[in-house]
Amino acid sequence: MPYVDPTDRDRGFLRLAFEEARQGYAEGGVAVGAVLVRDGEVVARGRNRLVQESNPILHGETDCIRNAGRGVDFGQTTLYTSLSPCAMCAGAILLFGIPRVVIGDNESFPGEIDWLLRHDVEIALANDREMIDFFARFRRERPDLWDEDIKGYVERPGAQT
Amino acid sequence: MPYVDPTDRDRGFLRLAFEEARQGYAEGGVAVGAVLVRDGEVVARGRNRLVQESNPILHGETDCIRNAGRGVDFGQTTLYTSLSPCAMCAGAILLFGIPRVVIGDNESFPGEIDWLLRHDVEIALANDREMIDFFARFRRERPDLWDEDIKGYVERPGAQT
Repeated sequence: MPYVDPTDRDRGFLRLAFEEARQGYAEGGVAVGAVLVRDGEVVARGRNRLVQESNPILHGETDCIRNAGRGVDFGQTTLYTSLSPCAMCAGAILLFGIPRVVIGDNESFPGEIDWLLRHDVEIALANDREMIDFFARFRRERPDLWDEDIKGYVERPGAQT
Repeated sequence: MPYVDPTDRDRGFLRLAFEEARQGYAEGGVAVGAVLVRDGEVVARGRNRLVQESNPILHGETDCIRNAGRGVDFGQTTLYTSLSPCAMCAGAILLFGIPRVVIGDNESFPGEIDWLLRHDVEIALANDREMIDFFARFRRERPDLWDEDIKGYVERPGAQT
């Protein structure tokens, strides 16, 4: 499945994911946020909580799915994320059958987009300059946190699909 | 990287993962457990908490990594799991750079083992008859829970790598 362009409505929801990312940054955490939407309504919001909860599995996307909880028909949702999903988050997207993902920034981190495309997940890339610059600033300021958060990629460059 | 056979020590740690799975079953949850080991010592234990915490991202493996918390050198650990890891948990294994995984049962659910092998994760398969029979019983008794837990696989058989 090819990339698609985000719609204006997509860009609106992506701003909410970016708000979450900025909130995480303000809390001293890893600056990534996500929002889950169904039928034009926000189901859940989330942000990376590695620092806030000392919990390495809470990336923006997984925190968002946690906050959605049980009883959500993930097959009818779109996931908005400020940064391209890592292997764990891409795997969660497949596990829950989320059919569409809108990504604010895949320049700072390529993530596992190709794997998702091979499994017919629709991917919309915004490559929003403000999000890219924001994340670059976070990485400059807290390289220690970013390395900790994305550890397998740093140590094993071949870990990407 | 090819499969390897589990050692006797591996089988001992796998029993601890099975204990977690049985504890989860006793709690009315999804019956999968995991243990993380470094240098012959247990770093953390975990079990699926979908029911117990209404949290769909806590599979046995991700709960175990959550319980390990920060400051663990995952690159020096082995993860033991009673059931073959799904896409999210396999992705977590790559994200955290866990180099070795020992699996009790990959007959009941194939999981994403091939993806891990392609990324040079060492996989030891025990295919323990008691674990396989135990999990078959759980699935017979609670098909609703299993479907909820592994939703994307049920709805999209092509979701496996």
